[in-house]
Amino acid sequence: MAGIKVHGAVYSTATQRVSACLYEKEVEFELVPVDMSTGAHKQQPFLSLNPFGQLPAFEHGDLKLFESRAINQYIVHEFPNKGTQLTCPVSKGLGILSMWMEVEAHQYDPVASKLAWELAFKSMFGMTADLAVVEENEAKLAKVLDIYETRLSQSKYLAGESFSLADLHHLPVTQVLLGTQTKKLFDSRPHVCAWIAGITARPAWCKVLAMQKH
Amino acid sequence: MAGIKVHGAVYSTATQRVSACLYEKEVEFELVPVDMSTGAHKQQPFLSLNPFGQLPAFEHGDLKLFESRAINQYIVHEFPNKGTQLTCPVSKGLGILSMWMEVEAHQYDPVASKLAWELAFKSMFGMTADLAVVEENEAKLAKVLDIYETRLSQSKYLAGESFSLADLHHLPVTQVLLGTQTKKLFDSRPHVCAWIAGITARPAWCKVLAMQKH
Ligand SMILES: N[C@@H](CCC(=O)N[C@@H](CS)C(=O)NCC(=O)O)C(=O)O
Ligand SMILES: N[C@@H](CCC(=O)N[C@@H](CS)C(=O)NCC(=O)O)C(=O)O
Repeated sequence: MAGIKVHGAVYSTATQRVSACLYEKEVEFELVPVDMSTGAHKQQPFLSLNPFGQLPAFEHGDLKLFESRAINQYIVHEFPNKGTQLTCPVSKGLGILSMWMEVEAHQYDPVASKLAWELAFKSMFGMTADLAVVEENEAKLAKVLDIYETRLSQSKYLAGESFSLADLHHLPVTQVLLGTQTKKLFDSRPHVCAWIAGITARPAWCKVLAMQKH
Repeated sequence: MAGIKVHGAVYSTATQRVSACLYEKEVEFELVPVDMSTGAHKQQPFLSLNPFGQLPAFEHGDLKLFESRAINQYIVHEFPNKGTQLTCPVSKGLGILSMWMEVEAHQYDPVASKLAWELAFKSMFGMTADLAVVEENEAKLAKVLDIYETRLSQSKYLAGESFSLADLHHLPVTQVLLGTQTKKLFDSRPHVCAWIAGITARPAWCKVLAMQKH
């Protein structure tokens, strides 16, 4: 089958989610840059890859996919014997893994993404943070992280003793928040702090960060 | 293994998502009512089933899960040979299925849930709809449904020719919107309209609706 193409941008957190998975799986891919500053993601030919006009989009031979978490599901099932496992073949383990993947998508990401927008991305566009929104979302994130702290005192990773997609999906937005005041919420929780130190130090993730330096 | 318990409420859309899946799979379960009006979901013992304090929570023997979409992943993998298939064993098909499941979770549900809150649930609490929020979210939903209309002109269901979790996950919130002004957005798109007529007429879904009558 033809090679893998990821249409995205090195600073896009959703693109990074897919790049991190491909590096973990040790699967080669080509990053095809999409220039968001010119609105290329809202025009053809990108819209034929993702009608929702969001990065990333993915191609593997004649298969076209979008939605970063779905692309990662495909990658781990298409390449079961390469690199890190990242998933669980047993239905009970799969249930627990799916649960923590949903927690990332529905409890963590909406709050963490709002904070990343306010505290990191807005300033790139010359806008200033709305401190009321920051306060509200830091309070919400603190509650989520309290639940993570309990969970991570019982198991090394969110879905159990092995690093999985549930952990990996947190990386891009969390990395952005480590460069903001919100870092204090991680630092004040010892198990969360050790978990983040561990997952951000993974060689696959370091390769994703290195892509920004070219 | 011991029987299945769903801790939830018959009017909770997330609970209905799980009940619909269990009926499709023809798997017996017990619905354990949680009284949201007294805040039972924010207290023990419910918090030990779901620390996020949301309905539903799920038990199968010693396995405890929360997050409706994850519970459904577990059910379809634990009972592969019962009832409707609802998933796809081939990695390419799984990628496409995952993609449409993510579309429901990230593109459809946030907008549809806001409309359901404004136009249906608020009035139950004696509150009135915010028409600016309704207008904004109906415009967003229209764009999502345009993409669904194109997709459903190419395949009978979102993930292909078979009914799957990607379709099923839309049912609870869509059913609520069918009782509101937002119904016009479905009615004006012929493929969307036929798709909704088909999935809401499924016997499993009718059983979920019948639970509200007891
Ligand atoms: N749920 C999507 C979200 C993708 C997303 O939000 N991508 C951003 C870049 S990180 C984007 O394209 N934003 C432009 C827009 O939403 O219009 C996924 O996980 O792939
Ligand atoms: N992502 C969760 C959402 C669950 C949810 O929002 N449940 C509602 C009832 S339908 C609830 O418990 N709301 C109370 C709250 O969020 O505090 C899931 O799919 O299970």
